[in-house]
Amino acid sequence: MKPHDYSGSRALFERAGRVIPNGISGHFNPVVQKPLGTYPYFARSGKGARFRDVDGNEYIDYMCAYGPMILGYGNPVVDSAYREQMKLADTCTLASPVMVELAEFLVELVPAADWATFAKNGADATNMAVLMARAATGRARLIAIEGGYHGSSPWMQSADRSGVISADHENVIRIPWNDVDALRRVLDEHEGEVAAFIASPYHHPVFRDNELPAEGYWREAHLLLKKHGVVSICDDVRAGFRIDMGGSNEYFGYRPDLICFCKAIANGYPISAVAGADSLKEAAGSIFQTGSFWYSAGAMAAALACLQELARIDAPARILEIGRKFTEGLTSIAAGQGLMLKASGMPSMPYLRMEHESGIEFHQALCGECARRGLFMASHHNLFVSAAHTQQDLEQTFAIFDEALAAVRASC
Amino acid sequence: MKPHDYSGSRALFERAGRVIPNGISGHFNPVVQKPLGTYPYFARSGKGARFRDVDGNEYIDYMCAYGPMILGYGNPVVDSAYREQMKLADTCTLASPVMVELAEFLVELVPAADWATFAKNGADATNMAVLMARAATGRARLIAIEGGYHGSSPWMQSADRSGVISADHENVIRIPWNDVDALRRVLDEHEGEVAAFIASPYHHPVFRDNELPAEGYWREAHLLLKKHGVVSICDDVRAGFRIDMGGSNEYFGYRPDLICFCKAIANGYPISAVAGADSLKEAAGSIFQTGSFWYSAGAMAAALACLQELARIDAPARILEIGRKFTEGLTSIAAGQGLMLKASGMPSMPYLRMEHESGIEFHQALCGECARRGLFMASHHNLFVSAAHTQQDLEQTFAIFDEALAAVRASC
Repeated sequence: MKPHDYSGSRALFERAGRVIPNGISGHFNPVVQKPLGTYPYFARSGKGARFRDVDGNEYIDYMCAYGPMILGYGNPVVDSAYREQMKLADTCTLASPVMVELAEFLVELVPAADWATFAKNGADATNMAVLMARAATGRARLIAIEGGYHGSSPWMQSADRSGVISADHENVIRIPWNDVDALRRVLDEHEGEVAAFIASPYHHPVFRDNELPAEGYWREAHLLLKKHGVVSICDDVRAGFRIDMGGSNEYFGYRPDLICFCKAIANGYPISAVAGADSLKEAAGSIFQTGSFWYSAGAMAAALACLQELARIDAPARILEIGRKFTEGLTSIAAGQGLMLKASGMPSMPYLRMEHESGIEFHQALCGECARRGLFMASHHNLFVSAAHTQQDLEQTFAIFDEALAAVRASC
Repeated sequence: MKPHDYSGSRALFERAGRVIPNGISGHFNPVVQKPLGTYPYFARSGKGARFRDVDGNEYIDYMCAYGPMILGYGNPVVDSAYREQMKLADTCTLASPVMVELAEFLVELVPAADWATFAKNGADATNMAVLMARAATGRARLIAIEGGYHGSSPWMQSADRSGVISADHENVIRIPWNDVDALRRVLDEHEGEVAAFIASPYHHPVFRDNELPAEGYWREAHLLLKKHGVVSICDDVRAGFRIDMGGSNEYFGYRPDLICFCKAIANGYPISAVAGADSLKEAAGSIFQTGSFWYSAGAMAAALACLQELARIDAPARILEIGRKFTEGLTSIAAGQGLMLKASGMPSMPYLRMEHESGIEFHQALCGECARRGLFMASHHNLFVSAAHTQQDLEQTFAIFDEALAAVRASC
C-alpha cells in the first residue's frame, strides 16, 4: 500500500499561511492537529462515508465533518429537498413556510420540545438557551461540567484561553461530571442565584475518556434542579440524532427544559435549533436574538428532510450498531497485537485511546499511519460514525488499522 | 389596485405561534413589525429585486433580506459558482481549497486586510474581532457607540434586554457618535484598559436618523486610538460592499486594524469574515474560535463569486446611484404632497423618516400601505438597495409610494 502523498495539501497550506492566521482556522487548525504533516489539510470532494483530499487520496472518514454528515456526504434525499427549496427561496426578507413545518416536525419528534427556534451555529443555540434561562429566572449564574464543551463563545472556553477575560467566567461554576454531591453543594451555596445547569447528555471531553451518566445521575440531578428552580439545558449539539431521535436525553431517561441541536440536524447544511418546554416559551420569546441568515429556507428544508430520513431508517439504532462493530473490531485487532485499545462514550461517537499510554503520542502516530493508508480519525476527539458507513467500509477500516498499528509498533 | 390579501400569511402565522415563540423569531418578529396585519409574514419565493409572499402577492423589496441580497434573489453568477462547489464538497472534515482562494481575494480587494478568517454570523465576526483585540492588548474594555449595533450577543445588546446580565456590560463603554471629545475623555479615564473601539463606518441605528461621520471624525479618532494603543474595529457587516468594495472605511478615509464582513458578502449564502492588519495576525491566530459549519465550501465559493461579480460591475457605485434616484424620487413625491420625507445615511442603505413626526406611527402606516400595494420597506430600520433594482422597479416604486402616501394622508 503506497503511503499517501500530501504535497498538494502542503502547497495549499503554505499559501493559506500567508492570508489566514495559522493557515487553517478552527477545529482542524494545524496547531491542534499535530505534528505537521501527519494528516492531509484540504479536501477536494466527499461522497458517502468517504472524502478525497486535494492530492486525490481517498479516506474512509470517521469524523463526518466533526459530526454533521450523519447520512454521509452528498446524501440524495437531503440534497434534493434542499435544491427544491432553493428554487423558491433561501435567504429572504421574510421567513419561509418551511420554518413552521420544521418546528412542527421537531415538536412532534422530540418529547422535550413544545416549541423550537432556529439559528446557525451550535453556540448560537447554547447562547440562546442561556439567555432564555436567565430571562426565565432573573438569575445570572450557570453551572457547567469541567471539560464540557458548549461552543467557542468566551464564557464557554477555558478561562486561560487567549482573549478571554475574567468577566466572561464570573458567572460560570464548573463541577465534575457525574458528581451529584458537587451539584447539591453549589446549588445550596448559590441558592437563588443559578439560572441554568448546562451539560451534554453524557460527557464527551477532548483528550480524555468519555463518560456515560452513572446510574441515577440524571434522575437525582433533575430532582435537585427542580427543587432549586434551575433550568436544565441539554446540549445535544454533538450527540443529537446519533443516540435517540427524540433527543439523547430520552436514551438516558431524563427530560430537560431546553435542548440544543446543531451538527447532524441537516446533514451538513448550516442550521441549529433550541427547543423547549411550554414553561420556557414566554422567556424564549422575550429575548432578542437574530442573525443575518437565520431565516434561510434551504437549510430548513434540508433539516426537515434529514430528520424525516433519519427517523425513517431508525438511524440512531443503525449508527450505534455500526459503531459497536467498529469499536469491537478495532479493539480486537489491537488485542491481537497485544495492545489494549479503550473505546469510551457511545459507540456512535466513540473516543479511542491506547490503555498503555497516559499521553496521546502513540495514538497520534497511529492516526497518522491510518491516514496515510486511507482511514481518517482525529487523535484526541471523539469520532463520528454515520449511517453511510458500510460493511465494506468496516472491513477496509479493520485491514488498514491492523497494518497501521503494526507500523507504529515497529517504529517505536 | 387591489389591496393585498394576507390570509395565507395569517394562517401560517397562527400555526407558527403554536410551535415557535412569537410565531416568528428574529428581526422580522411581529413584536417588532407592528401593528399585526400591516405586513405579510412569510415569503414563498424570490427573484431579482422582488419576492412573493405565501398569498402570491409580489413585492419590490427594499430590505434585500436585511442586507444579504446585494445582487438580487437567485443571481445566476453566484448560484452557479455555489452549485459547482456543491458537486465536490460543502461541509467536510477538512477545509476546501476555496477557503484559501477566498482569503487571497479578500486580501487583494480590501486594503485593511492582510489576512482573513471565516465564520457564519455577523456576530461571529464581531465577537472574534473583540477576542483578537483583547488577545493583542491584554486589556478587557471596549468602547462602542450609543445605539450602535454589532449583532445580538449579550454584550452588544442594550443592558435592559431580557436575559442580559450586568457582567455582559461591565466592560462596554458607550459614547455618542461623532464625539471625538467623548472618545478622548474615556480613553484618558481608562488609560491602559481599553482593548478596542468598535463602530460601524457610519452610524446606522434603528428608529433614528442615520448619521455620516463628521469631517475629520475618523482621522482624529484614529490618532487617539493609536496614541492609546487601542485596536480599531470596523463593523462593516451591514454596509460592506454597498459603499466601497475595499471596505466602507475607504470611502470615509480611514483604515481600521480589524474589519468585519457578513450580510452581502455572498449574496445570501451564510458566511462572515474578519480581516485585519499583519500586526494583529498573531493575536488572530492565538484565539480559539470554531463552528460546526465554518469550513463549508459552498458558501465560500459563493462569496468568492459574489465579490468578483460586485467588483466587475462596480456594484457600490451602481447601488449608490440607484439609491440616490430612489431617495430623491420618494422625497420629491412627498414634497409634491406637501410633506417632508427625510432620507439619512448612505443612499445605498437609506433611513427614511417623515420630518413632521417625532414617532414612527405615520411612517409605519405608510409602509403598511406600500406593502399592500407591492412595495416592501421596514418602518424603523435602514433599507437596502441592490444592484438588481431596475429603472422599471423604481418607476413602479414611485407610483406605489405616491398612492400609498395619499392613502395614509386621507386616513389621518
